Amino acid sequence: MTVYLVGAGPGDPGLLTVRAAELLRECDVVVHDRLVSSEILAMVPLWAERIDVGKRPGGGVTQETINEILIDRGSRYTSVVRLKGGDPHVFGRAAEELMALRDAGVAAEVVPGVSSAIAAPAAVGIPLTTRVASSGFTVVTAHQDPANDRTLNWDALAQLGTTLVILMGAARAAAIRDRLIAGGMARSTPVAVIGNATQPDQTERRMTLAELGTEPIQNPATIVIGDVAALDLRSIVVPFTTHEVVPR
Amino acid sequence: MTVYLVGAGPGDPGLLTVRAAELLRECDVVVHDRLVSSEILAMVPLWAERIDVGKRPGGGVTQETINEILIDRGSRYTSVVRLKGGDPHVFGRAAEELMALRDAGVAAEVVPGVSSAIAAPAAVGIPLTTRVASSGFTVVTAHQDPANDRTLNWDALAQLGTTLVILMGAARAAAIRDRLIAGGMARSTPVAVIGNATQPDQTERRMTLAELGTEPIQNPATIVIGDVAALDLRSIVVPFTTHEVVPR
Repeated sequence: MTVYLVGAGPGDPGLLTVRAAELLRECDVVVHDRLVSSEILAMVPLWAERIDVGKRPGGGVTQETINEILIDRGSRYTSVVRLKGGDPHVFGRAAEELMALRDAGVAAEVVPGVSSAIAAPAAVGIPLTTRVASSGFTVVTAHQDPANDRTLNWDALAQLGTTLVILMGAARAAAIRDRLIAGGMARSTPVAVIGNATQPDQTERRMTLAELGTEPIQNPATIVIGDVAALDLRSIVVPFTTHEVVPR
Repeated sequence: MTVYLVGAGPGDPGLLTVRAAELLRECDVVVHDRLVSSEILAMVPLWAERIDVGKRPGGGVTQETINEILIDRGSRYTSVVRLKGGDPHVFGRAAEELMALRDAGVAAEVVPGVSSAIAAPAAVGIPLTTRVASSGFTVVTAHQDPANDRTLNWDALAQLGTTLVILMGAARAAAIRDRLIAGGMARSTPVAVIGNATQPDQTERRMTLAELGTEPIQNPATIVIGDVAALDLRSIVVPFTTHEVVPR
């Protein structure tokens, strides 16, 4: 009787962890997000219950309902997999689910996954850190408008010197650009936007910070900002990748 | 004839990716770091060549020698796995190896892994991000002395508001503490130090920023700094974990 909060990785089934694959093949129930690929869901036994709780623009299942589903199924079945895109603790609201399960006396365990923040740059030949150009990286999301964000110091972010990775920032790309430039980041800072990272329909665009948000971006997108975003260290091109590189 | 730069994850073999496990089971040569566990190396075929290039305090194999080994083996064998702890691009010097291989005309591919930066906090019940306490995270290393670091703005880091994760910072813990406090971070900021994360000999210590570095820390250690470092959302305790929690 355990609920496993499992990271599904960035999309490519090969980037599931061994433990995640084992849990999926043996679970009684899978409660999954919208971003989890059909190839990964196909690993779940035919007789297992599948519950899609993916949040959609303009509504869908609330966090409270998801918590209730997890408590209910976790109290009745041996193995419930709560499957989240990337890693459960990287903007996956795993903390809220863990607290709800603990309050209800249901055992829970987190199985970390490969975050898109790390896999998406790699998939287009961008090194997240290098000994010369970047001695660290920062991962943020943009569910708050950067102009009114009290949880994050965007001025410090603009001055930090690490590679900046923004997840789920497609809708606020222009606001992010304006806030970073206002904080002192150079307009010429290289930017890469990777869509559907590691999946067959992966896309990439390269630009400068000044150009970010001037064209619409579709989610799920990973935005990489910093000197490393100008690099492409691929020696071989993965066959399925479509290249929509915008020349700088 | 490909060199695969593969992330081995934080240590637990279950946190290898499916693709990493496949590549390890089929490789001709494995060139590995010191931090890769013996349990993971046991997956490599008996007939495969194993080369330990782990950097040790005070010397060991240079990066130039590692590059030469990769070029040599990559030119002669079908599948060479360059196995790195965590993720290859998270302080793994993968960029340097990719450039050397490309210059030599040897095909290379990166297989991302689960970073200790993400897995270590999860292993002790710390949510890396939460909707309330932390809207992002920053991962840095401390191979430079924070007092003289020109690549990273430590004042901005102290003011940022994201969870801060420091990898390979054991030897400089006191310097990191002093630099962050000088930058304005509160002395009472919660800190967790996780040793050998996800491995049978995992350890954890909890303290405040003012206490960081007052006792020696052994590598490999992951240092987590921020409000989330006071949390422990575990409902079940993984049996192998040793708890050396220092009460605050």
